[in-house]
Amino acid sequence: MTDEQATGPPAEESAEIGELQARVAELEDQWRRALADFDNLRKRVARESATQRDAERARVAGLWLPVVDNLDLALEHAADDPSAIVEGVRAVRKQALDVLAKLGFPQRSDVGEPFDPTLHEAVAVVSVPDTAAGTIVQVVRPGYGDGEHLLRPTAVVVAKGD
Amino acid sequence: MTDEQATGPPAEESAEIGELQARVAELEDQWRRALADFDNLRKRVARESATQRDAERARVAGLWLPVVDNLDLALEHAADDPSAIVEGVRAVRKQALDVLAKLGFPQRSDVGEPFDPTLHEAVAVVSVPDTAAGTIVQVVRPGYGDGEHLLRPTAVVVAKGD
Repeated sequence: MTDEQATGPPAEESAEIGELQARVAELEDQWRRALADFDNLRKRVARESATQRDAERARVAGLWLPVVDNLDLALEHAADDPSAIVEGVRAVRKQALDVLAKLGFPQRSDVGEPFDPTLHEAVAVVSVPDTAAGTIVQVVRPGYGDGEHLLRPTAVVVAKGD
Repeated sequence: MTDEQATGPPAEESAEIGELQARVAELEDQWRRALADFDNLRKRVARESATQRDAERARVAGLWLPVVDNLDLALEHAADDPSAIVEGVRAVRKQALDVLAKLGFPQRSDVGEPFDPTLHEAVAVVSVPDTAAGTIVQVVRPGYGDGEHLLRPTAVVVAKGD
């Protein structure tokens, strides 16, 4: 019994030390791998962020090429038939508005709407009979986009109170 | 001596167990924090990636607004003076090419250059006296960008060998 008491605990403790040392080695390995994963993700993100921005720039620029092509065509045809250019340019303008709408920035139509400082920029206030104060009576420069994604506010003339 | 041999090691081993347990707790904590950092970075990246793409889309779209504004102006003035529109539209076209160049996609000028399949798209091959085979003799549709960032290849007519 005395022998067992003397040697028993050390044997158990040695085993426990062995287990703990193994656990330490395992955790050190897991920790190091987690740090490496983090670092790799950080590097990948820096690389991909620039790539994605470039890709989006090229995508959006590419959508405008048909507009530029049609401007070229309108100008070429103008040499033969100057009166045809107005129709051609109207079509190009329509196409440009379609591109903006496709990108999430449709042209706003604000006439008759109440003035909203988050969407509109008042350039003048005028007296208009039978019109509620703050009603938009004229668009001076069109705005594009909506409340969530406003590309440019509409420059407007607003009715003064009667 | 027998006593020392029996009790000495256990005391030392107990101390070692205590140290190892503390090391295990510390490593578990560091590992957990590294995992949490990784997860947070992953989530932040997903969020910011969409935000950055949106921002780049809006930035590029915004560069085209003056072009659209000037198309509008050219059309407005056309009503008063139809002949003025050609000059106006030429200016708008120049402005559009400036926007493309600013985005990193200048219009290419390829006439006289040797055909390069990474930059050009041959739409026809013609016999041209005194011109080396493979020389670009005409641009059918302009290309934009350079070798590194080509937005669109130039559609060209190429000289056949004599």
